[in-house]
Amino acid sequence: MAMSGVATTLLRSSNRVGLTSYTKRCVHTSLNQVTLHENEEYIQPHVQTEIPGPLSKQYKSDLSKLQNSAAVTMFCDYSKSKGNYLADADGNILLDCFQQISSLPLGYNHPVLLDLMNDPHTQLTILNRPALGSFPSVDFLPLIENSLLKVAPRGLQNVVTMACGSCSNENAFKVAFFKYMKDLRGEEMPAPGSLELETCMINKAPGAPDLSILSFDGAFHGRTLGCLSTTHSKPIHKLDVPSFDWPIAPFPQLKYPLEEHVKENEAEENRCLEIVEDLIEKWASKSPVAGLVVEPVQAEGGDNFASDEFFRKLKKITEKHNVAFICDEVQTGGGVCGRWWAHDYWGLENPPDMVTFAKKMSSGGFYYSDAMKWQAGYRVYNTWMGEPIKLMLLEKTIGVISEQGLVEQAAYTGNYLREGLKDLEAKYPGALNSVRGRGTFCAVNGRDMEFRDKVMSGMMNKGILLGACGSSSIRFRPSLLFTDYHVDIVLDRLNQVLDSIK
Amino acid sequence: MAMSGVATTLLRSSNRVGLTSYTKRCVHTSLNQVTLHENEEYIQPHVQTEIPGPLSKQYKSDLSKLQNSAAVTMFCDYSKSKGNYLADADGNILLDCFQQISSLPLGYNHPVLLDLMNDPHTQLTILNRPALGSFPSVDFLPLIENSLLKVAPRGLQNVVTMACGSCSNENAFKVAFFKYMKDLRGEEMPAPGSLELETCMINKAPGAPDLSILSFDGAFHGRTLGCLSTTHSKPIHKLDVPSFDWPIAPFPQLKYPLEEHVKENEAEENRCLEIVEDLIEKWASKSPVAGLVVEPVQAEGGDNFASDEFFRKLKKITEKHNVAFICDEVQTGGGVCGRWWAHDYWGLENPPDMVTFAKKMSSGGFYYSDAMKWQAGYRVYNTWMGEPIKLMLLEKTIGVISEQGLVEQAAYTGNYLREGLKDLEAKYPGALNSVRGRGTFCAVNGRDMEFRDKVMSGMMNKGILLGACGSSSIRFRPSLLFTDYHVDIVLDRLNQVLDSIK
Repeated sequence: MAMSGVATTLLRSSNRVGLTSYTKRCVHTSLNQVTLHENEEYIQPHVQTEIPGPLSKQYKSDLSKLQNSAAVTMFCDYSKSKGNYLADADGNILLDCFQQISSLPLGYNHPVLLDLMNDPHTQLTILNRPALGSFPSVDFLPLIENSLLKVAPRGLQNVVTMACGSCSNENAFKVAFFKYMKDLRGEEMPAPGSLELETCMINKAPGAPDLSILSFDGAFHGRTLGCLSTTHSKPIHKLDVPSFDWPIAPFPQLKYPLEEHVKENEAEENRCLEIVEDLIEKWASKSPVAGLVVEPVQAEGGDNFASDEFFRKLKKITEKHNVAFICDEVQTGGGVCGRWWAHDYWGLENPPDMVTFAKKMSSGGFYYSDAMKWQAGYRVYNTWMGEPIKLMLLEKTIGVISEQGLVEQAAYTGNYLREGLKDLEAKYPGALNSVRGRGTFCAVNGRDMEFRDKVMSGMMNKGILLGACGSSSIRFRPSLLFTDYHVDIVLDRLNQVLDSIK
Repeated sequence: MAMSGVATTLLRSSNRVGLTSYTKRCVHTSLNQVTLHENEEYIQPHVQTEIPGPLSKQYKSDLSKLQNSAAVTMFCDYSKSKGNYLADADGNILLDCFQQISSLPLGYNHPVLLDLMNDPHTQLTILNRPALGSFPSVDFLPLIENSLLKVAPRGLQNVVTMACGSCSNENAFKVAFFKYMKDLRGEEMPAPGSLELETCMINKAPGAPDLSILSFDGAFHGRTLGCLSTTHSKPIHKLDVPSFDWPIAPFPQLKYPLEEHVKENEAEENRCLEIVEDLIEKWASKSPVAGLVVEPVQAEGGDNFASDEFFRKLKKITEKHNVAFICDEVQTGGGVCGRWWAHDYWGLENPPDMVTFAKKMSSGGFYYSDAMKWQAGYRVYNTWMGEPIKLMLLEKTIGVISEQGLVEQAAYTGNYLREGLKDLEAKYPGALNSVRGRGTFCAVNGRDMEFRDKVMSGMMNKGILLGACGSSSIRFRPSLLFTDYHVDIVLDRLNQVLDSIK
């Protein structure tokens, strides 16, 4: 069985790194017959119906009878999905550059993770889900050491787990409030019978103090009520929900490519930084800023980047005003940015006070500095507090990533992708703009929302699944198995789509 | 090998129901040698160190170097735990009447659930965790039908999943707000470019309206910032965290046994109901009450019961004022109360508008009525939105519970437990009071907090793990495999403890 002509002509010359037997292409025999070898991927997307297809549409309609299914893109057959390829209900095979909203680090059905599932110890860990904060397993500490601590941000050696990104941010906010009040009071807990202990029970100050978390325009930190007060990406998330009145700073609106607009971007960043400091000072008398939460790249908000220098200065401002710096790496963490954490690029003098995570880390949670520690039990707590199996998955995932150099591969592949996108930007003037990214955490803007949506739909029907973000951006959130081979397929299909709708 | 004398003398005459081979006692040969037969339980607790023991203490101290471990009770060996019995790090075997804060329906290592873990389909479901709101599996609808819909509260056929109880309540609150504003506006979404869409992005009214959720003194609904504004059980959860200023009503402080204080309890309930209606009316001009959240039994707050009549009247008040009635069954749901849902006892004319769940349901989420439906996508959303494996566990769990009549067994066992507790209350005057419960969801008060804590510690060191709640209550939260056989062991040990510290 020979390599398909399509695939071979797609191959661009490149110094491929980290390519393993797992990502090696399997043999593709004919348009309607895809042979999948064990542990290998499909050779390319395979589209046999419109996408979403008739079965996905039928299932969506059926599901809508018992829950809102308006956000369902398609129904999937996970038993037939493999690596970077997602199989849908209608027999289509898509090259998945979105990976369950950026949450699968090693794609579908990775053999190392499948092996883990066969282990009796894994099975009983899933079954006997503990209340982790009170009855951890005897192997809980080594499990954390072999997973979360292996990739702990420099300078942060404390970590607590939670079930999802929202709960992680909610609890990080609480820790910022605890720290603020401890500094103010000089002790963590007030005397028994104090006004603070009494008033907190009825939601009133001083026990429930008027403190705030500063966030940025365009930010996304989750959809629970605390998180939602710091989320400002789209009205659909926020409309009709009561909110804390907390300060919001502008996030730099930079021009891309960043290296061509250094001076004006710097001015824009300094403008935003001044407002941040101004807000912290102004709110001190109203609702003091206990914490500042920021994404290294505003993801849902449109893949908005800022310079490393911006974040260094921002960090300094928080240090000056004793504001907890909460770095939300829920979407950026886990290696996709070409480093394990996106904030690794910043070259900070002192680490963030807290780094929150979820998605590709399998578990939610947050790292925190010694200065953020609290002493009393049940302050940060939840019945489950995450789940040990997620840390077992993370441990194995870190092993694969480390052995195969997948973080470095993401850095290389991302560069290769951006180069190709820039070629298409030049080839179709006015269609695309603002190619940007770090690692494979990449984005490009369509000329407007309508055009962007047309491109996305065109790509989906050529078997390439992408994500939308902001008002006109397309985001790439592939797994760490994504290589230049896959980039070539994406660029080839994008070229076809742009050619047809330019 | 003969039955141990201890165990046989413990057996009280009773009409045991639902006793299966799984809960059948295994053979106990000597004090220091416990033989565990496959699929069978330990015959009784086995204590060989103080509890927590030296290893638990060492592990706790080690863990405290990287996270707050103040709430850790003990470290556990889940590979040696079985059914109602929890094995700890120090080789002690405890009869677990708390079950991971009431979250394990079938105890430890149930053979039916272990079988499920061996199924390749289960394994790939765990591995390929989807973004459920956008890319559900082709079998997602049948999975919901075979799990959540099998036990749906009467009248509620819509259901959405979430990761934990807090996220479930947060999202139920949001749905109450959506409904309130839809009723006010006459449509779900305002016109594009409207003031509402603009202001919601900056946390201001009218887009982020000043609406409230009414809750009760002593309530517990979770620890995220929205939930925490409705939680009023203990200061440790709330101190230093900013809160929404929402109305709080008194929860009836009833006298037990309920059947002996009908009249004064009714007066107390009516007093509370009047305040509820008063609050709804008074807050209409300030921060209108969009929803009311209530637990059928206030669990963390001290196992506070109210009558079925109280809840029927409460429901009527919410109907009169168009307030969404949110029944929080996170701790009461799943059969432990002797019905699948505690609110099944109430005999409501119309069902609650929403019923939230987590814990024994394996998955978090909430059921909702047709009137609560929203149309737009991404209004109730999260990357993961729970996890399919939890529904697969629930499906199997429901099967076991149904086949073995375990809900009926919980009703029987709970009665048997309360009878025994009342005997001890009479035997040790002034030590215990206020025995109460439904099913095995039972509690008894110690004479004060100090005494309660002594009893709890004494029981733990006799191998009986119980839960504390409120200021002086002991709560029973056993699995559904808990039978009168286990009750006999608990009562025997409690008798010994009371005799030594009365």
